[in-house]
Parts: sequence; C-alpha cells; structure tokens
Amino acid sequence: MGRIESPTAAARSVVRMRVRFAETDLMGIAHHTSYVVYMEAARIEWLRRRGVTYAAWAGRGVHLPVIELRVTYRSPARFDDELDVEASLAEVRTASVRFDYRIVRVDGAVLCAEGSTRLACVDDRGGLRRFSPDMVEALANAEGAAS
Amino acid sequence: MGRIESPTAAARSVVRMRVRFAETDLMGIAHHTSYVVYMEAARIEWLRRRGVTYAAWAGRGVHLPVIELRVTYRSPARFDDELDVEASLAEVRTASVRFDYRIVRVDGAVLCAEGSTRLACVDDRGGLRRFSPDMVEALANAEGAAS
Amino acid sequence: MGRIESPTAAARSVVRMRVRFAETDLMGIAHHTSYVVYMEAARIEWLRRRGVTYAAWAGRGVHLPVIELRVTYRSPARFDDELDVEASLAEVRTASVRFDYRIVRVDGAVLCAEGSTRLACVDDRGGLRRFSPDMVEALANAEGAAS
Amino acid sequence: MGRIESPTAAARSVVRMRVRFAETDLMGIAHHTSYVVYMEAARIEWLRRRGVTYAAWAGRGVHLPVIELRVTYRSPARFDDELDVEASLAEVRTASVRFDYRIVRVDGAVLCAEGSTRLACVDDRGGLRRFSPDMVEALANAEGAAS
Repeated sequence: MGRIESPTAAARSVVRMRVRFAETDLMGIAHHTSYVVYMEAARIEWLRRRGVTYAAWAGRGVHLPVIELRVTYRSPARFDDELDVEASLAEVRTASVRFDYRIVRVDGAVLCAEGSTRLACVDDRGGLRRFSPDMVEALANAEGAAS
Repeated sequence: MGRIESPTAAARSVVRMRVRFAETDLMGIAHHTSYVVYMEAARIEWLRRRGVTYAAWAGRGVHLPVIELRVTYRSPARFDDELDVEASLAEVRTASVRFDYRIVRVDGAVLCAEGSTRLACVDDRGGLRRFSPDMVEALANAEGAAS
Repeated sequence: MGRIESPTAAARSVVRMRVRFAETDLMGIAHHTSYVVYMEAARIEWLRRRGVTYAAWAGRGVHLPVIELRVTYRSPARFDDELDVEASLAEVRTASVRFDYRIVRVDGAVLCAEGSTRLACVDDRGGLRRFSPDMVEALANAEGAAS
Repeated sequence: MGRIESPTAAARSVVRMRVRFAETDLMGIAHHTSYVVYMEAARIEWLRRRGVTYAAWAGRGVHLPVIELRVTYRSPARFDDELDVEASLAEVRTASVRFDYRIVRVDGAVLCAEGSTRLACVDDRGGLRRFSPDMVEALANAEGAAS
C-alpha cells in the first residue's frame, strides 16, 4: 500500500470543548499541554464518529501511539473559553497516520493553535504493523458511518 | 489478620519536589489536584525505599488503587516552591492500607496541606485480596531496607 | 449571616463528560485525580447555569479556592466511559461553601465515585471575605436563572 | 539585534526526573503530554542554574510563553523510569528563544524523545518585546553562574 491522501470533506470533524480551570497555568491561559489533550480528545471523537473505538481496535491488538507532535500557538485560549477543535485525517501510510488540527475560539472565531500528530500502528508488543484493509476503509468513512 | 498500627519512626519518609509550571492554575498557585499527585509520588518513593516496586507487586498480580482521598489545604504552594512531602504509613488492614501526608514548603517551613489516602489491595481483575505475610513485612520495613 | 442549608431541587446540576485518554493511568482506569477535575468542571458548570462566571466574580476580587477535598472511589471509570457528574450545593457559610458530587457511569448507572469540596471565599490577596448578599442569592438560584 | 547561535558547552543542562504514576496512560507508558511537561521542567531548571527565575523576570513584566512545540517520540518511557532530560539553548532571536531537548532513559541510555520549543518574549499584556541586553547575557551564562 502506498500513500493515501484522504478526501477533505469526509476527513474532517469538529468537536466543541471548554477550557477547564485545571488546564490553565499561572499566566492565566490554557497551559500549552492542554491543547495537546484537546487534539487527542478530538481525534478520538473523530474515530468514534466513523465507527472506530479504541476498545475495538485494542481488542484486535492494534494501538495508535503518537510518534510525532507539532503545535504552533497563535493566540492564547483562556479559562472557560469555548473551543472548536477541528481534526482532519491528513495522510494514511502503511503503518502510520497523520491528523492535522485547528483550535478556534468560538467567540470571535480566533485561531488559537494549529497542530499535527503522527500516530504509529503498533501491535500489543509495540512493533509496527500494517493497517489492515478494513482499517484503511474505516479511516475513509465520513462522519456518522459505521465501520 | 487484624488491624496493625505501624511504628512511627520506620513508617515515615520525606521526599523533596518542586512545583512545576504545568501544575499551577490561573490563581497563580499549585492546582489542588497537584497536591494529590505529590502525595502519590511520595507514596511510591516511600515504597521504593522499602524495597517495594510497583513492577514487582504488579508482577504478582497485586495493585493498590486509591479508594479514599482526603486533603485539607492550609496555605497555597506556588510555582517553583520547594516542598517536602512527608508520607507515613498510618494503618495496615487485611486488604487495604492508609497513608497520611504532610506537604511543607521548605522556605519558612509552612504547612501547605495535609491529607490521607486509603489504598485497596486488589488482584488483576480488581477483586479485593489479602496482603500476604511478606507484603505486610515489607510495609513494616524502615527506609533503606530491601524487601 | 448564619449557616444556610440550600434547597435540594434548585441546588443540583448534572454535567455529562467522557473519560479522556490522557486521564487514564497504567491500571487502565481514570487516574484518581481525574475525578477531582470532573468535580471541578461540574462545579463551574453549576455556577454558570446560575449566572455566575469565574470572570465576573474575579472581576470583583472574589476567588473560590478549594480548602477541603474528599473523594470515595466506588467503581473505576474507564477510558471513553460517559459519566454524569452531579454537583449539589450542600452548605453555604459566611465565607465558605460546600459542594457534594456523585459521578455515575451512564452505561449501567454505576456509581463510580462520591465526593465533596469546601471552597473558601477569598479576596485578591487570599484573605477570607464574606459572601455578599447578592452572591448568596446567586448561589440559591435554580438552573437557568441569571444572577 | 540579529540571530545569535549560542555556544554549545554553556548552553546545555541535564535534569534527572522519574516518570510518575499519574503521568502514565492505559497503554502503560508515559502519556505523550508528559514529555512536554518534562521539557518544561528541564527548561525552568536550565534557567535557574543560570540565575534566571520566573519570579524575577515576571517582576519586570517579562513572560516566556511557548509558541512552537515539536516532539518526536523514539521509545516509550514507562512508569518509574529514571530519565535524563537534556535542555539546550539552541537560538536567541530579538524576541524569542528556542530550546532543544533530548529525553534519555538512564537505564540503558535509550533515547525516548527529542523535541524543541520556541518561546516568545512578551510583556504583561502579551505583546512581543525585545530581550534586554542583560537578559541576553543571562541566557549566555554557563551553569552555576548568577545573572
């Protein structure tokens, strides 16, 4: 299997969340690790909306640890801000997948951060494994589809 | 086995740590969950100094999840404060154990928080199990002893 | 002002949330600090639904740090579990307030944890201050009321 | 002021820390945000060893929020692993600074992660400001120097 550029419409989900008090730091803004947690939560919701649950894949011995992380911080999110976290499947390779993210403050539609994570497909012992055809298919689903 | 009050001298360890930036909140103080993480880290160090590692007990199918938590906050710890976190084994029951904690800011010896956690002794499936005699013995060790 | 027992119907709010991957630990369950974050998020939502925002009170120099925390863990919450976090105003004193919590897994209606936090009413320098009459009134609001 | 490549010997500090239980996730490894917290803790220690404390700079209205983050994960760190977190000043610009990191498991000298953060120099209102000459000087200090 080669590199697959995923279709843009099907490949995007938006998840709304709110900055928790525990996620702020003494600068009064969301700590920079909080955005990474938002990206992860949006990615998991992205998968769920396409019929993929962690439990189901883990039951088949498939895990998706993050192997690369990039975030650019544009404008600070603050406590209680509502955020739209957009996750998009950007690339599917043989044994890894990349998601891109945009985090936008709902009030004023301000871009707070952009980022990207690459996830490896690994088995129970941490060894790389190929995505199976049905997994690749599930990743190509649009929101609301069952796997 | 009945209730065992542990001896005070052997039962206490002090671990020094520093408030991390990520652990603060927008009030400029360590978030109240951070103290719970300090207490956990001190408890794990308490065990290590007595020859007990999580890996060793987990390898025998023994886990110690927290089943009760109490913290009283006295004075806020701030970013970069050095803290002495004192953990003491307070009580050993058949299938649970209680640790008490005092968190003291090194500068000025100010008491920041006091707390307590009860941990259950459970097996791999989460069922309660008794501490074995050698586990009870290990818990009675003084610092620096091997189990 | 004396002690005020708050009315039960008006005093309760339920907030639904989901256990995030980042909130789990190597036992495969939500880390015990995660429940404390859920309780905080539910309390903030409780206040918002009664017209009270942190920003508004902080703008008047009022903060509500946690001074006492108690949690009893009944049944572990796991990754991706949907939880109903119920927060209830339990007691209003001159310069502190207590909330009680019940965290229930939606699937099966299993009680995962119960807890309680006492919050002090403090000014910008951390000194205790009385709740003003309009603050006490706001705390007595039912869901959906403006302050 | 132009771009300043910092000297390598003076520009490196190593801080030892241990993976906390609270920092793991259900895959049994340190959650990928934990490495970002380690990098931050190492950077703050880097500054302290050169006489720079957050309090001192914040008192002058200087803050250093993270504006770019990159991490590549090589090998998972596990609970209780001792890690050497190496932070190096990589670049000083007019109003930003970049640190590079290597996180190495002490046991076996295994590289767990590499990363980099760019920090902006901002004033109390979040506006960009130049580093003053004495700040640039402090950043050029070797370990153990007072600013």
